[in-house]
Amino acid sequence: MGRKKLDEKLEKQITFLLEIDKMKSILRRTYHIDGARHENDAEHSWHLALYAITLAEYADEEIDISKVIKLVLAHDLVEVYAGDTYIYDEEGKKTQEKREKEAAIRLFSLLPDDQTHYFHSLIDEFNSKKTPEARFAGALDRLQPLLHNYYSSGKSWQEHDIAAEDVRTVNASVADGSKTLWTLAGAIIDDAKKQGWLR
Amino acid sequence: MGRKKLDEKLEKQITFLLEIDKMKSILRRTYHIDGARHENDAEHSWHLALYAITLAEYADEEIDISKVIKLVLAHDLVEVYAGDTYIYDEEGKKTQEKREKEAAIRLFSLLPDDQTHYFHSLIDEFNSKKTPEARFAGALDRLQPLLHNYYSSGKSWQEHDIAAEDVRTVNASVADGSKTLWTLAGAIIDDAKKQGWLR
Repeated sequence: MGRKKLDEKLEKQITFLLEIDKMKSILRRTYHIDGARHENDAEHSWHLALYAITLAEYADEEIDISKVIKLVLAHDLVEVYAGDTYIYDEEGKKTQEKREKEAAIRLFSLLPDDQTHYFHSLIDEFNSKKTPEARFAGALDRLQPLLHNYYSSGKSWQEHDIAAEDVRTVNASVADGSKTLWTLAGAIIDDAKKQGWLR
Repeated sequence: MGRKKLDEKLEKQITFLLEIDKMKSILRRTYHIDGARHENDAEHSWHLALYAITLAEYADEEIDISKVIKLVLAHDLVEVYAGDTYIYDEEGKKTQEKREKEAAIRLFSLLPDDQTHYFHSLIDEFNSKKTPEARFAGALDRLQPLLHNYYSSGKSWQEHDIAAEDVRTVNASVADGSKTLWTLAGAIIDDAKKQGWLR
């Protein structure tokens, strides 16, 4: 395009912001609650940020909620290049770490150096689960699709023939962030099994 | 659904979080940058939060960036019931304030009282533009669609036969939050007119 270019730093930041528009086309396995279509990464990340604001009081440890919000907003950015890896896809999960590391390097190198480091640090913190904020963010990242699956009558679970015990195992880390939300998750899994939506 | 109910406060919060899933089906006039489909409110809100994190340094006043992020995440929630009002729709804008006020009351009453007040306060702050955070959030809310229109070759502008002078007027508030970003907006509008994408 022919517009006048501004200073290099700002142009890099704009390039990054345009590139991550692709998050809106990365589809997850989870459906919207109305079951009409699959959720994409941008929608998922926005929803998690609202989960964080609304459910902050259920974190078991003291948390900086603003940090949790930043973690959930950024946690899936690498999927712009690495794609979404389904949580029950054992094959895909084998290469996930490598694919996502390469994607992070490629994506965040679009930014000025200080922000390259900042976004890497957000992703690393989210993935390592070593801080209370990362543990609570991780709990929300598991809880939200659980609610979506449940309130769309187990649509995605049934399509992939998922077992209740696998759901329980894969989502057990909700308990690392919030005992209350893990109780909610348990009630959901129990009833989903009773309804026949989970094996 | 038959799951075990938990305490009333948590159930209210979950009801709210399920209800705002509808943001993912509220379409704006703006296209994704690839021009494939219209952006929805959840995607737009997520993108603005990333704009806030990435472009914070260009705010002309001292800002609490975490507050800016919360403002942009919440600013369009009322559209769950009130729908999106196109910025160049003079008829729609006449009833916008009333529709959005009613929608806010209906939506936020789903929440426990303290959070009802909190979300009203976020929306009121964003709309009133009386704080530095609201002015910067408002600037981003105008800049993002401008970039999308420009990088999708003026697709939405051309469909609605928009004039360059109207774009300049409607987006002038970018300058209230950031002179640098207003310079960028100006460069975009100038070139869009040159390209023939704006009248």
